Amino acid sequence: MKKIMLTGDRPTGKLHLGHYIGSLKNRINLQEECESIFIIADLHMLTTKNTKEDIIKSKENARQLVLDALACGINPEKVTFYLQSEIPEINEIYTLFQSLVSVSRLERVPSLKDMAKDANIEMPFALLGYPILQAADILCVKANVVPVGKDNLSHVEITREIAMKFNKKYEKIFPIPDAVISNECPNLPGIDGKTKMSKSAHNTIDLTDTKEELTKKVMKMPTDPNRIRPDIPGKVEGNLVFLYHDLFNDNKEEVNSLKERYQQGMVGDIEVKQKLIVALDKFLTPIRERYQKYNDNNYLDELIQGGTNIIRKKVQATLREMKEVMGFYS
Amino acid sequence: MKKIMLTGDRPTGKLHLGHYIGSLKNRINLQEECESIFIIADLHMLTTKNTKEDIIKSKENARQLVLDALACGINPEKVTFYLQSEIPEINEIYTLFQSLVSVSRLERVPSLKDMAKDANIEMPFALLGYPILQAADILCVKANVVPVGKDNLSHVEITREIAMKFNKKYEKIFPIPDAVISNECPNLPGIDGKTKMSKSAHNTIDLTDTKEELTKKVMKMPTDPNRIRPDIPGKVEGNLVFLYHDLFNDNKEEVNSLKERYQQGMVGDIEVKQKLIVALDKFLTPIRERYQKYNDNNYLDELIQGGTNIIRKKVQATLREMKEVMGFYS
Repeated sequence: MKKIMLTGDRPTGKLHLGHYIGSLKNRINLQEECESIFIIADLHMLTTKNTKEDIIKSKENARQLVLDALACGINPEKVTFYLQSEIPEINEIYTLFQSLVSVSRLERVPSLKDMAKDANIEMPFALLGYPILQAADILCVKANVVPVGKDNLSHVEITREIAMKFNKKYEKIFPIPDAVISNECPNLPGIDGKTKMSKSAHNTIDLTDTKEELTKKVMKMPTDPNRIRPDIPGKVEGNLVFLYHDLFNDNKEEVNSLKERYQQGMVGDIEVKQKLIVALDKFLTPIRERYQKYNDNNYLDELIQGGTNIIRKKVQATLREMKEVMGFYS
Repeated sequence: MKKIMLTGDRPTGKLHLGHYIGSLKNRINLQEECESIFIIADLHMLTTKNTKEDIIKSKENARQLVLDALACGINPEKVTFYLQSEIPEINEIYTLFQSLVSVSRLERVPSLKDMAKDANIEMPFALLGYPILQAADILCVKANVVPVGKDNLSHVEITREIAMKFNKKYEKIFPIPDAVISNECPNLPGIDGKTKMSKSAHNTIDLTDTKEELTKKVMKMPTDPNRIRPDIPGKVEGNLVFLYHDLFNDNKEEVNSLKERYQQGMVGDIEVKQKLIVALDKFLTPIRERYQKYNDNNYLDELIQGGTNIIRKKVQATLREMKEVMGFYS
């Protein structure tokens, strides 16, 4: 039997290259070997963003999230999308799991404190419960495989603990899911080279950037700061432009030759950057094409609604089974 | 318009006189002036008791809770009972409220720590969320009046804060409910006079005790320890037998006369106790009769199921209104 993979994101806005490298690429590879389910985690969004404006925007953001995923290569024939807030049974599963985790266990999850700090709020109860709600997301479809960034590894650990506790306390009905970490580049640096690529740092390359936009952005990227003339030998390690070449230029021969010449002081920054622009443009071309192809609200809404209907039936069955073994129907 | 009152208990077993005096009496008075809703809070039970055995027992305990309430004088024509776990929308409301309360606010609720200590468990996430789930119980039916024991006053305070925050953040849809404290005797001492009446302390007078059982129990009750002979003047204040006379003997003349004679050393403990036995027996007679009348599983199940169906419609309407003003349907 195929393994079940759960992936997904909070619908908080457009994706960029950092998301692609950090998680989507991993998911695209895994969609071939797993039954793939993709959660649009709008209830999780509420933990830090919950004004009426945020919630209204999240519907548009849900479409955007799916569109970006499809553009990157998530195959709508192979992946079932679902909108978390449209599956009320997840709330019930979440409530039932809450007895199985102690407050002190959750307080030892470092990412939650960071999230509260980033949002500049006192830790809300909802945010402390984030990993339990994630456990509900994962276990409600009995997923075995969860691709995550490093930040979320400790969350999947809590899912595993909940599954084990439930199985031991009542009956063995849940798989113990494995986290699959994308090691390639979990935190792609932004084009300023300062922090990881993020919308709030204004240092992104977006999936739909045109060649002109790419050119402007790449030309601003920092290189080896000690190399003030092209005939000075330059450093390749830690050089942002070469990091991007490694990740996005599929002409490995060209990359190796550029690296050699750079280290010998035999190539200018401009040429290295121009070749990166060409490579990124080539990389983004099929993404832009799929983006155009799938950019249709009716299509996206139907994809989300249809997927949600399918997943809801699975979740209802899981909840029924849970309540059965817990003794609710005895 | 009539005010809406929410009352209820966790289905943990048979009620006793302590429950009657501490909360039921208050509710019985209020049922005349309010639209009364009575929650059978089985999800709350999960916070400290959640083995399969506990959950299986809770169905029988739910019937017992309703039966005890009816026996005490809760009028099934005036009060709508509902079983919390059969209204899944409460879980959704609970999840949506979780963003509105901080962890540190909940950690300042003293009763929760006591509950964890009593159950000998590390504070589970579910228990820290107890007051938020109670807010969902109360606000899902838009209750204005919540009769509580002193222990639960701080919980209703959190409900009020949640209602105010929600109204301010989104739109004014919730009443700010008032707690009504039963001041008569929130913690009736048990027949050993040592601790408050509770099943675990084995010091209860049960609602269905026969006259023989009453006799045995009252005869064991401590009186004034310094009064070793009936002709020694005795103390009435702090005397358990007279506390019970005050609460349960409706012949106030008799009670006053007994008190006077006791203080003058002109009546024996035996006579005071015998009169208490008669008074308690008289007090319990209509309770026992109603207990017999309503003790029918089919009747009780139908009462619970019928009430739950009615309340579920109200809760669905509240949830829809909440999601509407939060922007989910925009």
